[in-house]
Amino acid sequence: MNATPVIAIHGGAGTIVRHAMNAEAEARYHAALTDILSAAQRVLADGGSALDAVTEAVRLLEDCPLFNAGHGAVFTAAGTHELDASVMDGATLEAGAISCVTRVKNPVLAARRVLDVSDHVMFTGPGAEAFAAAQGLEFVDPSYFYTEARHQQWLNARGTSGTMLDHDAMTKFAFSNDPRDPIDPIDPDRKFGTVGAVALDANGHLAAATSTGGITNKQAGRVGDAPLIGAGCYANDATCAVSTTGTGEMFIRMLAAYDVSAQMEYRGASLEDASNDVVMMKLPRIEGRGGLVAVDAKGNVVLPFNTEGMYRGFARVGEAPVTAIYR
Amino acid sequence: MNATPVIAIHGGAGTIVRHAMNAEAEARYHAALTDILSAAQRVLADGGSALDAVTEAVRLLEDCPLFNAGHGAVFTAAGTHELDASVMDGATLEAGAISCVTRVKNPVLAARRVLDVSDHVMFTGPGAEAFAAAQGLEFVDPSYFYTEARHQQWLNARGTSGTMLDHDAMTKFAFSNDPRDPIDPIDPDRKFGTVGAVALDANGHLAAATSTGGITNKQAGRVGDAPLIGAGCYANDATCAVSTTGTGEMFIRMLAAYDVSAQMEYRGASLEDASNDVVMMKLPRIEGRGGLVAVDAKGNVVLPFNTEGMYRGFARVGEAPVTAIYR
Repeated sequence: MNATPVIAIHGGAGTIVRHAMNAEAEARYHAALTDILSAAQRVLADGGSALDAVTEAVRLLEDCPLFNAGHGAVFTAAGTHELDASVMDGATLEAGAISCVTRVKNPVLAARRVLDVSDHVMFTGPGAEAFAAAQGLEFVDPSYFYTEARHQQWLNARGTSGTMLDHDAMTKFAFSNDPRDPIDPIDPDRKFGTVGAVALDANGHLAAATSTGGITNKQAGRVGDAPLIGAGCYANDATCAVSTTGTGEMFIRMLAAYDVSAQMEYRGASLEDASNDVVMMKLPRIEGRGGLVAVDAKGNVVLPFNTEGMYRGFARVGEAPVTAIYR
Repeated sequence: MNATPVIAIHGGAGTIVRHAMNAEAEARYHAALTDILSAAQRVLADGGSALDAVTEAVRLLEDCPLFNAGHGAVFTAAGTHELDASVMDGATLEAGAISCVTRVKNPVLAARRVLDVSDHVMFTGPGAEAFAAAQGLEFVDPSYFYTEARHQQWLNARGTSGTMLDHDAMTKFAFSNDPRDPIDPIDPDRKFGTVGAVALDANGHLAAATSTGGITNKQAGRVGDAPLIGAGCYANDATCAVSTTGTGEMFIRMLAAYDVSAQMEYRGASLEDASNDVVMMKLPRIEGRGGLVAVDAKGNVVLPFNTEGMYRGFARVGEAPVTAIYR
């Protein structure tokens, strides 16, 4: 008998900022995570595939302005939005990825179409948009990705010398009464804004998906780990499904997502041991900060991170979703 | 005492085509490989780093019109050239990658600059070109990448329904008297045109670099394995350095370059066993065709491929370069 289907998601990792830690802010994040988990849980409960469940979860995370992906994505140095996403099917090892798109409403749906219909795995830039258009995906005006909070953060970042790893101006919105304003209990200057999902379905198949708006005020054209198979996203029925969030460059250099799988396959590590080794040992060696969510074919779920907090949760079919922010 | 420094290179893998197999064509490829190996060998003999040796080898492979990278790159469906490259330093696990550039003369030098000076690992498209320009790298008119043989191949491919994995029109140039025309003993329709290099230096450090013009008549924006760390390029002093060539999508899905390293690290495989497992077992399971060159810290060199031929060679400091085309 197969294990009970389960979905796990993340919405970014980082450091707790005390003055933004209020009950209302936390409740808003818990509610968003719970709603998204519930929707993906229904996909699995209805017999849907892990691939469909992670695609739906990430689509909803993209649509939610609280998270840095899709609507609510951060601004590049050029004042634009560049979005990346990837998805992988553990049953077939097929994968799809999209980077640097600017007008595709849901990058994860474009990545999914690459997986479903293309002989290729990855498209970037205008070629990626042309592929998405040919596939009939929904396009939006770039203003769709605009949120006042992200714009303010970008204006602030422009006054500094470097990029900001996430939304520095967020704290000023912590006590806003406008429900559209992100209120972010995790220190926006120490938060890594990627979203992702992993799932196990009733047939024992695994899948993973990841999406991001990148880092505030980043140089145009920078590609992080989110659209890179093996770095930000990996799935293999024989081992596990993994989606990561963190300082993307270090996750690329460590092949963080695939390394969890490789440790399970080649040294017989458990999902927990392999994930902890990557997040708590290997990544810190090169100052890599962040975390991941992962699931194996037995239904084990892990959500490790080496920061003070990570927006996260999981939901087994037939059980209430569990969400968390801090350690 | 450290092992003798060594460089190994490849210039694409594929199937032998009998009517293009003539002594002059073969001699031209052997001579080009030997010249490039000799130049990289001198870098190592002079105490240069593995990183400098692989960068120089790939720069020369890019400049040589016989190989599909830099000058001599294939055409996209849009009639343009899109170039990708990556480089990784085994001593630091630092990496640099560039994808979809159209006017940077030597993409590997742009990837190297990313490694040397940027906090990021990968840039794509216009953002990558802006980075290269800011770094003072040499730009060329897109016509620089034009070669008559590649253009003819593209014109032929446009008449077909799909992409061509490499230069189908090459055979018609097999008996050309113009030394600038590629004469390609490996069936151009079954050849995967990436170039790459791996090296071990006198200090025991490893490095890898990879570069490509992609596949003829490919959809604009397609990214193959060449610029993806862990897929087409990987280096780690603790294990090995790897550069791959082949059906890029399968190498991405298998994390082919990193998998060699992971098998050495986690299951104690030798360089030879790990490389053979990836090239002869894992890749064929998903119809992945091609090969790789790899070196470990003991100076072992392997050059496995699952096609009928791969342009390849290696050179230890103090010994004559060895080159080969067929099995």
